[in-house]
Amino acid sequence: MDYEQSSDIHTVAIIGLGLIGGSLARDLHARGVRVLGADQNADDLAAAVREKVVERLADDFADIGQADVVVLAVPVRAALKLLRTLAPRLADVRLITDVGSTKASIVRAAEELGLGDRFVGSHPIAGDHTSGWSASRVNLFADARVFLTPAPSASGRAIQLADALWRLTRPVPQTMDAAAHDRRVAWTSHLPQIVSSALGCTLAGENIAWSELGPGGKSVTRLAGSSPEMWTDIALDNAAQLVPALKAMEARLRQIRGLIANGKDTALNHLLADARTWHTPAS
Amino acid sequence: MDYEQSSDIHTVAIIGLGLIGGSLARDLHARGVRVLGADQNADDLAAAVREKVVERLADDFADIGQADVVVLAVPVRAALKLLRTLAPRLADVRLITDVGSTKASIVRAAEELGLGDRFVGSHPIAGDHTSGWSASRVNLFADARVFLTPAPSASGRAIQLADALWRLTRPVPQTMDAAAHDRRVAWTSHLPQIVSSALGCTLAGENIAWSELGPGGKSVTRLAGSSPEMWTDIALDNAAQLVPALKAMEARLRQIRGLIANGKDTALNHLLADARTWHTPAS
Repeated sequence: MDYEQSSDIHTVAIIGLGLIGGSLARDLHARGVRVLGADQNADDLAAAVREKVVERLADDFADIGQADVVVLAVPVRAALKLLRTLAPRLADVRLITDVGSTKASIVRAAEELGLGDRFVGSHPIAGDHTSGWSASRVNLFADARVFLTPAPSASGRAIQLADALWRLTRPVPQTMDAAAHDRRVAWTSHLPQIVSSALGCTLAGENIAWSELGPGGKSVTRLAGSSPEMWTDIALDNAAQLVPALKAMEARLRQIRGLIANGKDTALNHLLADARTWHTPAS
Repeated sequence: MDYEQSSDIHTVAIIGLGLIGGSLARDLHARGVRVLGADQNADDLAAAVREKVVERLADDFADIGQADVVVLAVPVRAALKLLRTLAPRLADVRLITDVGSTKASIVRAAEELGLGDRFVGSHPIAGDHTSGWSASRVNLFADARVFLTPAPSASGRAIQLADALWRLTRPVPQTMDAAAHDRRVAWTSHLPQIVSSALGCTLAGENIAWSELGPGGKSVTRLAGSSPEMWTDIALDNAAQLVPALKAMEARLRQIRGLIANGKDTALNHLLADARTWHTPAS
């Protein structure tokens, strides 16, 4: 599939113009796609309109049906609510997608609302600790992975359209089952986020300022700066997968603490070497 | 104190030409200081000599007495052994320092060996996950903090010389008690390192490759690539301070896991918001 085939995406409505939604809007706009936008934050929306990246959607979304594609780019649980609200207006839309970090619950909701044939979840792995329209930028997705999780009843046409949408921003999306997706990101994304925030809380509890850290400590705690609202949503939505991941992390820390407390240098060295081999297989 | 006063540092011997020792050698060489070098790794030493940054020290360190300053830039516990070996040859040396991440044990050893009057520990906060001569570079310390931990019997002249040594590489060193130093770095440096390595081990245990992580996960696990030997030494040497820090981190993870498992969104949001406020006070 090349860019040609995606040329039948004329109008995309994006609700939520934060880091992900805003960056998607910028890329689509740059490729000549008409972008309709909405955001709860009036300043962010005004800025996006002023920069001529998006045209304003009606407050009640009455005009959303003119879009070929609707993208929900709001926090995970907000997206669930929004999908229910919008459902009656989406009869003519050819693809409905989202950008959330968990996929099983939104896919389930789409099926329940009778939107499954046109729903394909998206998860671009491109977020960082910044947020809002001011953080959005062109080419954010250029080197990102994007996972697509079609609803069980999604049509081939809808999947093809989702694929074409993301190829407009460069990545080649990878399709996978929503539940498998959520299991995977619990480890690859949600666990690192919670670990980083937990370390931030731990240091805050000792009255150690972020500025007192060296470059390494700053790197480990970088995600502590992420949006609390967004991550509360993700963690609770994916609790079933995330809780075992957190338990595994706690067990590992306990194990290492035991080795340190008991002066087990060989075992500790092996364990740290395993971590390094994992991080830098070539070395 | 300006650079003039440090001009009486003519010759510095550096044992260990890795990231820290090698970078110090490069900076001192660039300022016209004669640098004598040694490294267990014959290739690294040969490269440093070939680049004309250092002259080779005798294998038995017989010529180390000609240095004004001796810098031990080897892992923490190796530095302890090395100090004992070198002690008889250091009678004419005006300053002995190290660059290790823990300070109480080396300061104690220096006192016991009768070197306390000329021993001032150094800890430049400039390490990252790279290592070896090939990782060393000029200006590594330009924006770094450097802590100085004088032995209890250190002379004012030795402290002044240590201060002058590091000012040659740019930073303005800060003097503090060795035990207070070790307590502090247990939280600011050693805890983030172990957390990053533990997360690496946890993900390795799930067969998740480092390359599967997004930018955030890569940031949190960056330190997992650090030298296992160096960090085994540091963790065991500073076990008394590090173990309570690890316990606090485990407790925080347990707390967050409980909130997630029980769907406590308000409390979880507050906690993640605390982490963000800590990370980004202005936001």
